[in-house]
Amino acid sequence: VTPGLVSLVGAGPGDPDLLTRLALRRLRRADIVFHDGLVPEPILAVARRASRQSVAKRAGRAETSQQAISDALIDASRLGVRVVRLKVGDPYVLGRGGEEAHALEAAGIPFEIVPGISAALAAPALAGIPLTYRGVASGFVVLSGHDPHAYVPILDGLRPLSATLVVLMGLATRASLTADLLTRGWPDTTPAAVVVDASRPDEFVWAGTLAGLPGFSTGTSNALPGVIVIGPVVALRTKEHSHVRVRQSALVGSRPVGVR
Amino acid sequence: VTPGLVSLVGAGPGDPDLLTRLALRRLRRADIVFHDGLVPEPILAVARRASRQSVAKRAGRAETSQQAISDALIDASRLGVRVVRLKVGDPYVLGRGGEEAHALEAAGIPFEIVPGISAALAAPALAGIPLTYRGVASGFVVLSGHDPHAYVPILDGLRPLSATLVVLMGLATRASLTADLLTRGWPDTTPAAVVVDASRPDEFVWAGTLAGLPGFSTGTSNALPGVIVIGPVVALRTKEHSHVRVRQSALVGSRPVGVR
Repeated sequence: VTPGLVSLVGAGPGDPDLLTRLALRRLRRADIVFHDGLVPEPILAVARRASRQSVAKRAGRAETSQQAISDALIDASRLGVRVVRLKVGDPYVLGRGGEEAHALEAAGIPFEIVPGISAALAAPALAGIPLTYRGVASGFVVLSGHDPHAYVPILDGLRPLSATLVVLMGLATRASLTADLLTRGWPDTTPAAVVVDASRPDEFVWAGTLAGLPGFSTGTSNALPGVIVIGPVVALRTKEHSHVRVRQSALVGSRPVGVR
Repeated sequence: VTPGLVSLVGAGPGDPDLLTRLALRRLRRADIVFHDGLVPEPILAVARRASRQSVAKRAGRAETSQQAISDALIDASRLGVRVVRLKVGDPYVLGRGGEEAHALEAAGIPFEIVPGISAALAAPALAGIPLTYRGVASGFVVLSGHDPHAYVPILDGLRPLSATLVVLMGLATRASLTADLLTRGWPDTTPAAVVVDASRPDEFVWAGTLAGLPGFSTGTSNALPGVIVIGPVVALRTKEHSHVRVRQSALVGSRPVGVR
């Protein structure tokens, strides 16, 4: 049997409308989809003819399970079927897609990379926060907040306010992240925001300062993945201009504004 | 007349297949599209019923022309038509989308943000380079290479090799960027890559080290926008796994591999 193509596909931040045309096509034709636990049902439903396999990682067993995921992709490909490995956001941003690519390459399996919209960029945008702004921020840093040992070396030298900080998977560690920034000279008045469930119907934005970051509450969704944005650009935020809000406000309904 | 909705739309890196479903819908229904000079024709062609207006900036006149672009968006909206402002990549990454949003907000124009795939993330991915990798890089920095005065403060403190560097609009300044990194302690053996025309048929990848970065040549396309990636993750690159190559290799043709 000729091995089937494995597509490492980015699912984007959650709204099926933010899937790319290529991702839609790969999902529709997939025979089997291996997906993260965080991919929402409306996106999985695009893969209508595929069998689905959740490969959500269990805490503390990530090491074992990463190998198991790679093995499952290889085994499926060798059956000669079309395989999609579906990850939230972009497969190559903090998602261990690189490790899966290496395993596939080593096994001689044909694969391709289908980039997706990373929440690192989309969540701030949908909250009305430009990551860069002329005269305010000319670059940004994307970090995982999951493991302080990993992000501290990056923060160590970074000049306070020199770049916008975007922290994924940092809601749980936001108190220590804040302390780490304050001790490195970031003012406690630095604007900061949290975007939870970007692009989903319950999209939620908190905006304040670094001083308030440890204490904010999302209400019900405290355990959900959120994106933290820190830097002066947060103060430049425009409000309620996410396409999700526009859709809800019926600006683009059956009789949309702007069509004569 | 009720003002028309203005959609700030990210066109992605160039391949129409990397447009999102939402971007496709907005383009198809647009009455007028204001686009950058870099948006390729196959993407513009999606906006089949729209009139098109190029708002490419001329060197040295950016200041004036940014105001003119915002004014044009406002004027069009006030005619009651559907307006798309189309930018390569993501509208809020180094694209001055934030300034346009502010102008629209100040004028009371309804607008929305439609995130797109940024070349900052997609170009490395399509070149087989994961921006993060367990134990190698747990974060990345995105900079514009256009203006050294803007990026130098970010590089100043950044600990060498602590994060992957992604530089947009840096091909012209790559010699001075390399010198700036070497004087800040980055080893000249640091892996580096340049990705030109990511996701387009003539996608081109150069991979080497920081020492070789100033001297590499893309051949014909030296003036084109390219993405520079610097850091140990570049050495982890898998080869020829861009979906563009996969498509060209007929792995996914009329009789694709992997379909029984």
